[in-house]
Amino acid sequence: MSLDFSARHIGIDDSARQLMLDALGCASLDALMDAAVPTAIRQTAPLRSLPHAATEAEALAELRAIAAENRVRVSLIGQGYYGTITPAVIQRNVLENPSWYTAYTPYQPEISQGRLEALLNFQTMVSELAGLHTANASMLDEATAVVEGMLLARRASKSSSNLFLVDSDLFAQTRAVLDGRAEAVGLELRYLPLADTDPADLPEAFGVFVQYPAASGRIWDPSAIIARVKEQGGIAIVAADLLALTLITSPGELGADVAVGTTQRFGVPMGFGGPHAGYLAVREGLERSMPGRLVGVSRDADGRPAYRLTLQTREQHIRRDKATSNICTAQVLLAVMASMFGVYHGPDGLRRIATRVARTTAAFAERLAANSVEVLNDAAFDTLTIAVPGRADDIIAAARDRDILLWRVDADTVRLSFDEQSSTDSALFAELSGVFGFMPGSGIPGAGASEPVTRIPAALERESEFMTHPVFHTHRSETAMMRYLKRLADRDYALDRGMIPLGSCTMKLNAATEMAAVTWPEFSALHPFAPLEDVQGSLVLIGMLETWLAELTGYDAVSLQPNAGSQGELAGLLAIRGYHRSRGDEHRTVCLIPSSAHGTNAASAVLAGMRVVVIATTVTGDVDLADLRAKIETHRDELAALMITYPSTHGVYEHDVMEVTAAVHEAGGQVYIDGANLNALLGYARYGDIGGDVSHLNLHKTFCIPHGGGGPGVGPVAAKAHLAEFLPGHPLAQMDVHPPFDMTTGSAGTSEHRGAPVSAAPFGSASILPISWAYARMMGSEGLTDATANAVLSANYVALRLREHYPVLYAGENGLVAHECILDLRPLKESTGIGNDDVAKRLMDYGFHAPTMSFPVAGTLMVEPTESEDLAELERFIQAMIAIRLEADRVAAGEWPAGDNPLVNAPHTAESVIAGEWEHPYSRELAVYPASLVADDEHGSGADGSGGFGATRADKYWPPVRRVDQAYGDRNLVCACPPIEAFA
Amino acid sequence: MSLDFSARHIGIDDSARQLMLDALGCASLDALMDAAVPTAIRQTAPLRSLPHAATEAEALAELRAIAAENRVRVSLIGQGYYGTITPAVIQRNVLENPSWYTAYTPYQPEISQGRLEALLNFQTMVSELAGLHTANASMLDEATAVVEGMLLARRASKSSSNLFLVDSDLFAQTRAVLDGRAEAVGLELRYLPLADTDPADLPEAFGVFVQYPAASGRIWDPSAIIARVKEQGGIAIVAADLLALTLITSPGELGADVAVGTTQRFGVPMGFGGPHAGYLAVREGLERSMPGRLVGVSRDADGRPAYRLTLQTREQHIRRDKATSNICTAQVLLAVMASMFGVYHGPDGLRRIATRVARTTAAFAERLAANSVEVLNDAAFDTLTIAVPGRADDIIAAARDRDILLWRVDADTVRLSFDEQSSTDSALFAELSGVFGFMPGSGIPGAGASEPVTRIPAALERESEFMTHPVFHTHRSETAMMRYLKRLADRDYALDRGMIPLGSCTMKLNAATEMAAVTWPEFSALHPFAPLEDVQGSLVLIGMLETWLAELTGYDAVSLQPNAGSQGELAGLLAIRGYHRSRGDEHRTVCLIPSSAHGTNAASAVLAGMRVVVIATTVTGDVDLADLRAKIETHRDELAALMITYPSTHGVYEHDVMEVTAAVHEAGGQVYIDGANLNALLGYARYGDIGGDVSHLNLHKTFCIPHGGGGPGVGPVAAKAHLAEFLPGHPLAQMDVHPPFDMTTGSAGTSEHRGAPVSAAPFGSASILPISWAYARMMGSEGLTDATANAVLSANYVALRLREHYPVLYAGENGLVAHECILDLRPLKESTGIGNDDVAKRLMDYGFHAPTMSFPVAGTLMVEPTESEDLAELERFIQAMIAIRLEADRVAAGEWPAGDNPLVNAPHTAESVIAGEWEHPYSRELAVYPASLVADDEHGSGADGSGGFGATRADKYWPPVRRVDQAYGDRNLVCACPPIEAFA
Repeated sequence: MSLDFSARHIGIDDSARQLMLDALGCASLDALMDAAVPTAIRQTAPLRSLPHAATEAEALAELRAIAAENRVRVSLIGQGYYGTITPAVIQRNVLENPSWYTAYTPYQPEISQGRLEALLNFQTMVSELAGLHTANASMLDEATAVVEGMLLARRASKSSSNLFLVDSDLFAQTRAVLDGRAEAVGLELRYLPLADTDPADLPEAFGVFVQYPAASGRIWDPSAIIARVKEQGGIAIVAADLLALTLITSPGELGADVAVGTTQRFGVPMGFGGPHAGYLAVREGLERSMPGRLVGVSRDADGRPAYRLTLQTREQHIRRDKATSNICTAQVLLAVMASMFGVYHGPDGLRRIATRVARTTAAFAERLAANSVEVLNDAAFDTLTIAVPGRADDIIAAARDRDILLWRVDADTVRLSFDEQSSTDSALFAELSGVFGFMPGSGIPGAGASEPVTRIPAALERESEFMTHPVFHTHRSETAMMRYLKRLADRDYALDRGMIPLGSCTMKLNAATEMAAVTWPEFSALHPFAPLEDVQGSLVLIGMLETWLAELTGYDAVSLQPNAGSQGELAGLLAIRGYHRSRGDEHRTVCLIPSSAHGTNAASAVLAGMRVVVIATTVTGDVDLADLRAKIETHRDELAALMITYPSTHGVYEHDVMEVTAAVHEAGGQVYIDGANLNALLGYARYGDIGGDVSHLNLHKTFCIPHGGGGPGVGPVAAKAHLAEFLPGHPLAQMDVHPPFDMTTGSAGTSEHRGAPVSAAPFGSASILPISWAYARMMGSEGLTDATANAVLSANYVALRLREHYPVLYAGENGLVAHECILDLRPLKESTGIGNDDVAKRLMDYGFHAPTMSFPVAGTLMVEPTESEDLAELERFIQAMIAIRLEADRVAAGEWPAGDNPLVNAPHTAESVIAGEWEHPYSRELAVYPASLVADDEHGSGADGSGGFGATRADKYWPPVRRVDQAYGDRNLVCACPPIEAFA
Repeated sequence: MSLDFSARHIGIDDSARQLMLDALGCASLDALMDAAVPTAIRQTAPLRSLPHAATEAEALAELRAIAAENRVRVSLIGQGYYGTITPAVIQRNVLENPSWYTAYTPYQPEISQGRLEALLNFQTMVSELAGLHTANASMLDEATAVVEGMLLARRASKSSSNLFLVDSDLFAQTRAVLDGRAEAVGLELRYLPLADTDPADLPEAFGVFVQYPAASGRIWDPSAIIARVKEQGGIAIVAADLLALTLITSPGELGADVAVGTTQRFGVPMGFGGPHAGYLAVREGLERSMPGRLVGVSRDADGRPAYRLTLQTREQHIRRDKATSNICTAQVLLAVMASMFGVYHGPDGLRRIATRVARTTAAFAERLAANSVEVLNDAAFDTLTIAVPGRADDIIAAARDRDILLWRVDADTVRLSFDEQSSTDSALFAELSGVFGFMPGSGIPGAGASEPVTRIPAALERESEFMTHPVFHTHRSETAMMRYLKRLADRDYALDRGMIPLGSCTMKLNAATEMAAVTWPEFSALHPFAPLEDVQGSLVLIGMLETWLAELTGYDAVSLQPNAGSQGELAGLLAIRGYHRSRGDEHRTVCLIPSSAHGTNAASAVLAGMRVVVIATTVTGDVDLADLRAKIETHRDELAALMITYPSTHGVYEHDVMEVTAAVHEAGGQVYIDGANLNALLGYARYGDIGGDVSHLNLHKTFCIPHGGGGPGVGPVAAKAHLAEFLPGHPLAQMDVHPPFDMTTGSAGTSEHRGAPVSAAPFGSASILPISWAYARMMGSEGLTDATANAVLSANYVALRLREHYPVLYAGENGLVAHECILDLRPLKESTGIGNDDVAKRLMDYGFHAPTMSFPVAGTLMVEPTESEDLAELERFIQAMIAIRLEADRVAAGEWPAGDNPLVNAPHTAESVIAGEWEHPYSRELAVYPASLVADDEHGSGADGSGGFGATRADKYWPPVRRVDQAYGDRNLVCACPPIEAFA
């Protein structure tokens, strides 16, 4: 046998494992886990659903068989999801390139300049297309972006009204998501046919929402409506199609305060619903109210322009229960793809595509008219709503027979949308003629006759420029584009260079085999509302994954719909809310949250309509049982839920967790366990067994979906049976009944999910689920268990080796941590003046990405090595940390001044040690090649850069900029591409 | 319409084109081409076979339809091609990564250290497995490696015999290739059943060849035979299966002088025949007689270890008509993959795979025996030859019905080989039981019973170690492997960083869409001898490509079999030879070759059994017509052929080419036109129209197959109808009749190829033909013509801009060059002491790969920008060249000493300007960031490294080593991985 996949996934081999166990004084891995994981919570039941681990080749073969059960037809369904052509150069060099997809969120801007530039391009492109001042770095999807727009309106509006006006000609999924989210936070929605409403008749409202072009395809001018709402103090939000915006007047020019939408059709495959990058842009003055991430331009220590995430104080993880959004991530990888689509095509190319779509639409409308078929929308960009009295079902069926999918509005009406792909399909018109029952035509007009026209109203034709920056005019050849993508990737540090030991983020291997199916057309080209018969393969895969996740976590039902951990969290809390309300317990709205919790917990609770009550934690980092009991007593009748993370955010297996959960249950509350740290538990304990009623998982942590530089994520919600019906459903889901089917018996219970949707698409980011499926399939339960044990082993080994240099905060019984450890840098700061920021930046000079900074405790670094790192890389990190400690000691000893030493000056760029005079009290060499000068490098690395055996100084990763000035960037807010001269 | 593919492929956009034409004083591109290309040779007939250009999406859709016509079954055919599992991490990060596949041959070692290390791993792995001292960096395939072994034996043998002994138990394709090649050079082959021959009975011979294990599967000890042949002064060559060598005694230990074979089953897909890396290893003392490329370890200017190509004086391009091999390339990309397969699995992993294969084989043999089916070979590794009297066809058919392919030996015998893939197929035994008509068994033994054994003879069990270097023991996890691949790729300069302006090598874009189909299983998983019905898609694709190439070049027939330009050349000359001999003109053996020809021309002529007579060239670089006529007169009756390159190797359209070809024809000779420079001609003139009888093309030059760091190549041979039957055939070809079918009429003439094969597989490197297919399909004839014109425009623009700084050698009428230009650096050398080597190395500091050095004229640089570079990159190159000229002037002016200036010290590594004191008379900054200091950078680049708009100093590409000491490496020959301490 060649090596099992688990031996490829787990970095530590047998001899390294022995060495590490010896160092820890453990006889075996089992002994370590017996000592680390409290006996009381250990799972005992064998896992039945997960089959024996498959090899990589077997898993791929099974995936191909599953894929073959999907059927890709020409989708004219539209409704927010459109055929698009991903340029091959972008697919290969971004979507299939680990340098892009294994990167982390750009919290360390100095080593993230490549993706930050790509995101700045995204923001520039979106804001200029939308005609608004500032766009953020992407949203999770269009429907949730509309919700965020509504919430933004609520807080930015001067009106005291609780009413939000919504044009009724909007996408069904947006309506469903809006309904659920507004209800949870007590906002009133009123749906009106705004295109046909006199503005003077509008009631006062804190905001208004318009889909533009409308869902029906109609294009109308909402500026009078917008003006009226704004007059009364409201905020106007427009969901606009970016491709249409190349031809029609922008929301900003129509008076909108906020524009939202999706960038899917900019080269991102439909993927059965996602992931795609949503967007949100605002007029000047609303920047600081925006949700989500925002990239800005600041300067580095040399005064050069440098990109960074800006205005972070707006963000939920800072604001906690004061948060107004729980979005803590973005869709970076997809935003990068969409932005590169814009870079590659440029404004002219985008206009060409849009014009072709608009002309095709107009031509088909004429053809319908010529055959006496009524088109209900006169003005149109890409979508036609067509009256077919009594014939809708027949038409839909006829189309499907020709491998074309249309949208059924009702029994008398169908709808279709053309797109970049279908508008080049010269055979399509003849097929559609057959569908509608008239003689086949000659194809797309323009093949000879007069210049075809569009159905865009003359008054709304776009006149303003967009995407004028050179970046959108330079990379027109594939060669130039390939090099641009390479250059940006080269600026960044991702998992393909070395370890990213980010506590709580589980930056483990994203195996190439796991990634393979993502770009197969059978998964990537499905419309999320394709008919049931076309998506059998995806539904089977989803069913299997839900089943496995349920069993692995000890729950009864799983929904894969949430497309980020934060959304899973929200979905879980909404399920609890739904449960209490179903029992008449409307008053149960208090959510207990330990003070050590991730800020998102509190934010999600607020957005689920709950009140947050904080529970103290003990000095050892555990939940303070006494305080918990007291708080339960105080809020007994209002108690909705307790949210805890297990193992705790301190990276510790709390021993009394069962007492905690029992206390909550006893008071009628539900227990929410945050699955962020599941990588420390899988195979050893199950949330459902230790008192959890509901959890969200993070497939991008424990189940190998790559972080993509800050998204996509997938945050399934898993629950006990009594909560199953409150999990997120979807009005357009092909499958209402979720089959946690038993692989061994073939039989199973099922659950119906009837909660409000939390994502635009029924199955969220469906196209990347094959990643987690493949991981689980190739690991099997044994491999998953092994991974957990090795992750814990690595964390404890790092803690052991670094303990004498940096105090390790928190540990469980036996002095063991779980899968991560917190290094306390406050004593160092006190004794040397060197802070954790300095250590983090100096680590870049040593060729590492910094650990998590100041979470959950300020002044600390939280290290999570994961099971995927091998001992050589762990040692390289340990040696670097020790060497940095020694450097700090030299500062303390006065050898180097506090203001001029390699730590406070870190990171060092190549240019900073080469150009000009060198006036620092340490050598140029020490600045940039510290590892080989200071570390006891017994493991043969000698590398001062990217890691690994045999690396030399020549392999060093060079940070492209020096330390970024955070305050400057916040003060001088620039969130679009700077002129090229800025870099001179 | 979005941009056509041709606008993505061609880097120069409309505005740049106008600017360049203005500079050249040309009114239009047509005007330029009218002035550059002699009127007499311009083609006039429209191209009919090539359809209108497809978009990228359309081409992919058509390729998917073609792929669907292939059928992949479980191949147990063996015969040198085996199922293997390409590790996904290698497929994604090497085969699908432009950093690997767009690299050039590592002639510039300083910027090729990554792939040189990979090749050194390859050499180390192969030589240790073979038990021999030195392996080269790969061969084209196994069959040609056997030929090269025979030729090596002829020149190294002390025997004067003309006889070469061959064990008759060898692969059919090897026999066919050997036969043809031996006949051409007049060597006598004698096939004997050596396993059953008394060594004492052997005649004296210059060499002996043994397949080990034998084609039948038999494993026998050839050491007595080898000893006997060596005793008589002969050389022993063994073709050995590398996977088997992990378990059986190595050829070296058996006394072999030379081992050859293929590394296909080390993770390289069968691909319907190729490309794969062949190998050749020799005992100590034969290194300098080896053909092919050899990587060695030398040292750089700092004394650090640095890799390079070594012993280049052995190579054909140096030795010309003294050459003993015409191999001028390798299969680098495939050798890298195979070596990484070894790195990833390590010796233990390889042994595990081999043992599984051997046990499966033994288990199936036992099962056959238990059912009274006779296995003819008692000893076996993976292959069983099975007696099925009268039933072979039925058995083959029964297997095919179960989607299994077996090998038919004759009507009474079948054969099967297990491999890495099939030995994991637990259902296979049951299927095979059905095929052979006995009861289904319980699957692979070992599932419960006693430890299965193999059928490897105890006396031949391998005891010696192999692959002991740490590199084969370190990268065991996928994370470690991914980082190793990234680290090596980062050391190298490939097309994804910037321009590689290599004259005569046409380093144009290798588009991602072109590459897509290469890794589709329908193309990659086919066995080259799969039955006709299974390979219909590939045959259609081959037929289309042959048809297009024939029409584009004005020939009547094309063979895609040659898997390198050198092999196409040989095939073309063999066709001429065959033609003359078929007419009784055995005496026509003289081949006229201009003195400016590429060395391979002469080498191929020699290997085709011809005598080379050199023709003078004029001072302007043209063929000297007077000398040609004189030589024709002298050799009129012996005249076989003239070989010329058009445009000439000087990059000039010779105006009297039709006079040249007419003169040869008049004397009864055939005209061979080398297609190396076809990129200057496509769409404007056709070889067949200007007097060519036969040509080889280079799909890796003109038709976008990536260079892969020095292979694969594809060198089709194209000929007029009278030569068609002499083109290379193949005894195992699924299709004897080549259909130059007419896409418009559906009808066509066909041609039968009956020459001896020049490659192991019927269609050579079939799996990469979709690349060229896609290129031609997406360009259409108009796009291909445009590409030519833009390539010529770029070359002339570069020549114009650099002319005042470096004399441009050679030009045609109107002072125009073709698609490349030669910069004469001899005056610079004379006036400043700075040579072309210094300029080439200094270009690395500016972020460029050097142009072609000293070919075709010593002391020059030949620049071929190709059509794919955009004007910004051309300008960056021009500015760098001008800046270097100015630097050289400062040396001449005495500002910098001749022995210490930025040119002679180039390239500069980061470490060399950072570590230690700086004692040079120029600044550190000037050393490594010269572009922004010296150049007039009006095009916004400012880049001192990888190119492109918006690049900054932070994007600089750093050469990993300083200038490599060539002489030291040749004197101190080290061709295997150095110990890790060497890098300390």
